[in-house]
Amino acid sequence: MAKLWGKNLNKEVEDFTVGTDFQLDQRLVRYDCVGSIAHAIMLQKQGYLSVGEKRKLVQTLDEIIFLDEKGKFKIRKQDEDCHTAIENYLVKKLGDTGKKIHFCRSRNDQVLTALRLYYNLELGNCKKQANSLLESIKNFKKKYSGIMMPGYTHTRKAMPSSIDLWAESFADSFKDDLKLLNFTFNLVNQSPLGTGAGYGLPTKTDRKFTAEKLGFKKVQENPIYAQNSRGKFESIILHSLSQIMLDLNKISNDIIFFSIPEIGYFKLPDELCTGSSIMPHKKNPDVLEIMRANYHIVNSYEFQVKNTSSNLISGYHRDLQTTKEPIMKGFDITKQSLSAMSLVFDRLEVNKENCKKAMTKELYSVKEVYKLSKKGTPFRDAYNQIKSKF
Amino acid sequence: MAKLWGKNLNKEVEDFTVGTDFQLDQRLVRYDCVGSIAHAIMLQKQGYLSVGEKRKLVQTLDEIIFLDEKGKFKIRKQDEDCHTAIENYLVKKLGDTGKKIHFCRSRNDQVLTALRLYYNLELGNCKKQANSLLESIKNFKKKYSGIMMPGYTHTRKAMPSSIDLWAESFADSFKDDLKLLNFTFNLVNQSPLGTGAGYGLPTKTDRKFTAEKLGFKKVQENPIYAQNSRGKFESIILHSLSQIMLDLNKISNDIIFFSIPEIGYFKLPDELCTGSSIMPHKKNPDVLEIMRANYHIVNSYEFQVKNTSSNLISGYHRDLQTTKEPIMKGFDITKQSLSAMSLVFDRLEVNKENCKKAMTKELYSVKEVYKLSKKGTPFRDAYNQIKSKF
Amino acid sequence: MAKLWGKNLNKEVEDFTVGTDFQLDQRLVRYDCVGSIAHAIMLQKQGYLSVGEKRKLVQTLDEIIFLDEKGKFKIRKQDEDCHTAIENYLVKKLGDTGKKIHFCRSRNDQVLTALRLYYNLELGNCKKQANSLLESIKNFKKKYSGIMMPGYTHTRKAMPSSIDLWAESFADSFKDDLKLLNFTFNLVNQSPLGTGAGYGLPTKTDRKFTAEKLGFKKVQENPIYAQNSRGKFESIILHSLSQIMLDLNKISNDIIFFSIPEIGYFKLPDELCTGSSIMPHKKNPDVLEIMRANYHIVNSYEFQVKNTSSNLISGYHRDLQTTKEPIMKGFDITKQSLSAMSLVFDRLEVNKENCKKAMTKELYSVKEVYKLSKKGTPFRDAYNQIKSKF
Amino acid sequence: MAKLWGKNLNKEVEDFTVGTDFQLDQRLVRYDCVGSIAHAIMLQKQGYLSVGEKRKLVQTLDEIIFLDEKGKFKIRKQDEDCHTAIENYLVKKLGDTGKKIHFCRSRNDQVLTALRLYYNLELGNCKKQANSLLESIKNFKKKYSGIMMPGYTHTRKAMPSSIDLWAESFADSFKDDLKLLNFTFNLVNQSPLGTGAGYGLPTKTDRKFTAEKLGFKKVQENPIYAQNSRGKFESIILHSLSQIMLDLNKISNDIIFFSIPEIGYFKLPDELCTGSSIMPHKKNPDVLEIMRANYHIVNSYEFQVKNTSSNLISGYHRDLQTTKEPIMKGFDITKQSLSAMSLVFDRLEVNKENCKKAMTKELYSVKEVYKLSKKGTPFRDAYNQIKSKF
Repeated sequence: MAKLWGKNLNKEVEDFTVGTDFQLDQRLVRYDCVGSIAHAIMLQKQGYLSVGEKRKLVQTLDEIIFLDEKGKFKIRKQDEDCHTAIENYLVKKLGDTGKKIHFCRSRNDQVLTALRLYYNLELGNCKKQANSLLESIKNFKKKYSGIMMPGYTHTRKAMPSSIDLWAESFADSFKDDLKLLNFTFNLVNQSPLGTGAGYGLPTKTDRKFTAEKLGFKKVQENPIYAQNSRGKFESIILHSLSQIMLDLNKISNDIIFFSIPEIGYFKLPDELCTGSSIMPHKKNPDVLEIMRANYHIVNSYEFQVKNTSSNLISGYHRDLQTTKEPIMKGFDITKQSLSAMSLVFDRLEVNKENCKKAMTKELYSVKEVYKLSKKGTPFRDAYNQIKSKF
Repeated sequence: MAKLWGKNLNKEVEDFTVGTDFQLDQRLVRYDCVGSIAHAIMLQKQGYLSVGEKRKLVQTLDEIIFLDEKGKFKIRKQDEDCHTAIENYLVKKLGDTGKKIHFCRSRNDQVLTALRLYYNLELGNCKKQANSLLESIKNFKKKYSGIMMPGYTHTRKAMPSSIDLWAESFADSFKDDLKLLNFTFNLVNQSPLGTGAGYGLPTKTDRKFTAEKLGFKKVQENPIYAQNSRGKFESIILHSLSQIMLDLNKISNDIIFFSIPEIGYFKLPDELCTGSSIMPHKKNPDVLEIMRANYHIVNSYEFQVKNTSSNLISGYHRDLQTTKEPIMKGFDITKQSLSAMSLVFDRLEVNKENCKKAMTKELYSVKEVYKLSKKGTPFRDAYNQIKSKF
Repeated sequence: MAKLWGKNLNKEVEDFTVGTDFQLDQRLVRYDCVGSIAHAIMLQKQGYLSVGEKRKLVQTLDEIIFLDEKGKFKIRKQDEDCHTAIENYLVKKLGDTGKKIHFCRSRNDQVLTALRLYYNLELGNCKKQANSLLESIKNFKKKYSGIMMPGYTHTRKAMPSSIDLWAESFADSFKDDLKLLNFTFNLVNQSPLGTGAGYGLPTKTDRKFTAEKLGFKKVQENPIYAQNSRGKFESIILHSLSQIMLDLNKISNDIIFFSIPEIGYFKLPDELCTGSSIMPHKKNPDVLEIMRANYHIVNSYEFQVKNTSSNLISGYHRDLQTTKEPIMKGFDITKQSLSAMSLVFDRLEVNKENCKKAMTKELYSVKEVYKLSKKGTPFRDAYNQIKSKF
Repeated sequence: MAKLWGKNLNKEVEDFTVGTDFQLDQRLVRYDCVGSIAHAIMLQKQGYLSVGEKRKLVQTLDEIIFLDEKGKFKIRKQDEDCHTAIENYLVKKLGDTGKKIHFCRSRNDQVLTALRLYYNLELGNCKKQANSLLESIKNFKKKYSGIMMPGYTHTRKAMPSSIDLWAESFADSFKDDLKLLNFTFNLVNQSPLGTGAGYGLPTKTDRKFTAEKLGFKKVQENPIYAQNSRGKFESIILHSLSQIMLDLNKISNDIIFFSIPEIGYFKLPDELCTGSSIMPHKKNPDVLEIMRANYHIVNSYEFQVKNTSSNLISGYHRDLQTTKEPIMKGFDITKQSLSAMSLVFDRLEVNKENCKKAMTKELYSVKEVYKLSKKGTPFRDAYNQIKSKF
């Protein structure tokens, strides 16, 4: 009785189209139930369900949430996805009442709803992790405040810098990332529930009611746009995550470079270093290398989503199902990377002595030029005068 | 006397590194002069220039702006870029006074300043064009309001839709794009002037003063972040543009598809159609095909910028120069595409009769199901009952 | 006793760096054992192992292969990867003899060896699947040979085409893909075993011997190149797969378009169609839509690998570990897509009548022009003469 | 009289669709004439032209080639592209005879032919440049042969390496790139001439004759495939170029890193270094940074082409015109980068003393382990014994 809407799909084709969707959907069970609860309440409010029917549906959906929390609501491949699994469960438990839950919605708006509830939560999680990293950076900065170190351009010593300046630069960058994250959170925070298959429904519903119930900031009025924003919104989210990852990529490069023994401004404690299977002396910054690579993963996810959504006409296409994995993994990778970077900042050591030794004379060449300039030599002449010394 | 800071660079290497930068820089001349004027005023305010020197510098910079407007300030390859060309001009005209303009800045913050002033303007232009397209969509919708047409999912007829619904869906999407554009405008609107080569300057300047003079919303305090945001900000801008282009891509697909003779809901007037060199009967929607392809150009620009900036340590690298072409072309393509799409909406015709004929029975299958549901058949049973008819 | 080379790595960092690598490695167990067997035989040949030690190692490695085939050799997260799991097993079983297996190799060349053996096999599998698809196309063509249909340019009817021409076009394209696949197979077919950590080994080994034993076409002589080709070779493979996927993408588009009821040249049998949760009449080509989207997945994998490998100095970096998932999934998706497309061609139906009806007059406009041309009117004049009729 | 096939295209739309195509086409003039000459000869051979007509066409096409070499055959925007400009010229000069040149071809196959002739030449140029770089690497290696230097993994000193090993690694990599380039050259070397608009021609032609005349290795038989290979072939070429660029990217990183003063194994002579506008002491490796960035440009071109070609049905779409710029620029960038890298290897200096000083004890840790192993300590125990020293 798996597929309630009775397809006779060829088994191989079904396996092919379902792919790993049924596994990914495991984490959407909660959100689909939450969405369905709001939907059921609305159905009753509109007179499409009796109070008793609504109560039974809400109870059973709560039951599924409870089972899912215990890891006991497993989606099987033949269920295809969480939405079918949940409707199946309702029908099995409640008979005709279960068969009424899908009135006034399509799987299209149902999926969109569950996904957006999930995005809301995950965007919040990313914000939390980013703030926690900001805290770690602040502590690191305080611990090593006042230490001068060389600033580099073109991977060569340029001018005097400091731990404070370096740490602050990333704090400022993350603060801008957080603004972008917030903007994205607000932009995608639109309720698609009630848009049906992308062209509305031939009956009256109360979209404002479900939107409020589910905590959405607004109703996404146009049903075609609701569908067309699948892929679009995901790419906007992934782009926001990629900006965080770009910063982590840069921090990773800095720490890897500043901690090579030839430079030695930083030291990664042994517990953050990995060894080699052949060279007993090696202490490798694998944690930062994986972080660096993670940027490229998230980036390619954004790219995948953007291209998958392109060159298609309006309305849902199954192609869009494949955007589920990149967005989910994108969130996972970003959260893990932020958390790992907090740990790095908590443990990272600055070698004061190496920093000091590295503050060599050429770093002050601009200072020399400026001294001459202030005494009256036009800047460009002063520059050329000092230049001849190098 | 081309390179004021006297490099002995190998000719081939110089050509290779300059690339087309001197050509792209032609459009930055104005912005660099504007930035330099604010800088000169600040220098005088701080006591680094006399009032007379400042006046001469400002006058000569105004002169360059004037020449540039007339197309008479040409950057030559040996100038390398607009910044050198302008400093050269000032030195040639004003002697020692010209040699003082580069005090308290580096080419790094100078370039960033010119670019951001340019971005501000171009983001404004994009907003204008997008609003003008919104106007065209609105007019189109009004002209054909009330006409029903099939809505598609999976490139197959699904449910009843209408011109109104279709046109509104893009209007809503562009409105969200405009929000993103606005956000981006505000985010990148930070003054980098005075951050020098990315590590500040060994003398006092007034960054707040120049920022206000240039109309920036805030000072980008951290000089390392100012440098590191090169590439980052460009990718954020290109991403915003790509969202506009994604919508144009979808509209293009819709119109191409809805106007094939086999479907014929839409008709592109002949003046918007291109012929074939061999087939006398052909009327092709080239304008929409170029538009569709343009999305992929802007998209690949975003990814070029994102990858160019990756896996590098903090501080400027010449790699970042190559982000100039994609951002400039990205703006050009977006503006041209928005403008072309306005024209399309102004001229696009709806074939009312074809739309009407296409409103076939199966489009109302959900209505039939809902009729049964409302009479008491649980939705899923009603669905299966109607399904057996197809 | 998990990590034989005794790291004190922080637990969170370890989890972060291992990621899903231990799961992906499950499918490398066999290849690592095969590589290790060849390595052990070489070690004995060079006098580094006794005959008895070699025998025991080979037996135990065979045992692991056997266990793995039964699904009984499970890599746990604390093992980190298959290589450690296998060495652990050998040490546990054989004591000191097990501790000798890693002499004359590093995990770097060991991983490369296992991966390349796996690539060889999977490239072979892809070839087989592509050939099987060629067979299905051939049968389809034979079944519907002689049926004319319109050929399209710019998504508009252009000139007469036929099922034969259409089917052949993809057969020819896949034949070129197979050439690329073959070329790739030969290019990456180089033995890295014995290159150690990328800088050779401070003792004599016999790389030619192990290369032949393992069926490699040649020894990859330079150890730095062996390391640097990680990422590079993977991107070449993924690019080859993406060419196959590009063809599948185009076929999918064609079939989706030619089977919309408004056109109806093709018909996808119901067993290959998916329904809708709300619209009882829908028959959707989901299988082709997933196929189309799969192109973008493989494409973004290539892109991810290419960017992960960039902007890094020579020698191994942990970043490269993240190229394992895209290459493995790239193979899986390509094989599954080829197989699903065979099925589609086996079942796809051509609607002869619709094809015939669609052979409208304008398709023959070039023929008319040519008739005039042959009678003496210069082509361009003839073209314009006919054009005036449309 | 610009557009011979009389379109009434709206001016803005025309500008938009033509874009910069008329400028890019300047370099195709020669190839289009060469293709047209072969076509004219074939037309006469088939009896579609008189001997006199053929002679006049060939002469005039030769004239255009001659004018073009002198820079005197300029394509104007209103010509749209080189193909129209050339046909216009023929008609203007030869009247009716000129109007006959387009018999038995479409602009589609005409463009493909010109492009492929151009690709053949440029692929040859890339091969030449790559071989010339191989020569430079060989000379560099000979000059500094025998110098030991540290080998790095994870950007940390790992094991002993040498200039020879380092230089050879890139030589080997380029040799593999050359194989790929050769393969690509052979794969795309198929004559599309005579496939018309993608569905053949309603009259007899001799495709084998023109293919041989133009030096193509084979006829691309299927006309649909000929069209569908637009975009596909370009992406295969760009991928081949990107592999060369990936190697250049890695060399660039190595030289930038090995030449930082803190490490100093390499020294870039001053004539290859760029200065700073503010810091008189700076000597920056801009040439290598631009090279590194160029990889990302070529890479993003490949992806642009790959995505532009996707999600479209068979047959020409104007979208494909936008693949012209990336392929042309891809060739330019690759040739320029190869040439610049030859220069770098010709001038690059190795600091023998710094290399020697850097050969510190830990680089020999594996040697120590192996000494113990050879004396009988199982490898893993020996490894752990030595490890405890670090």
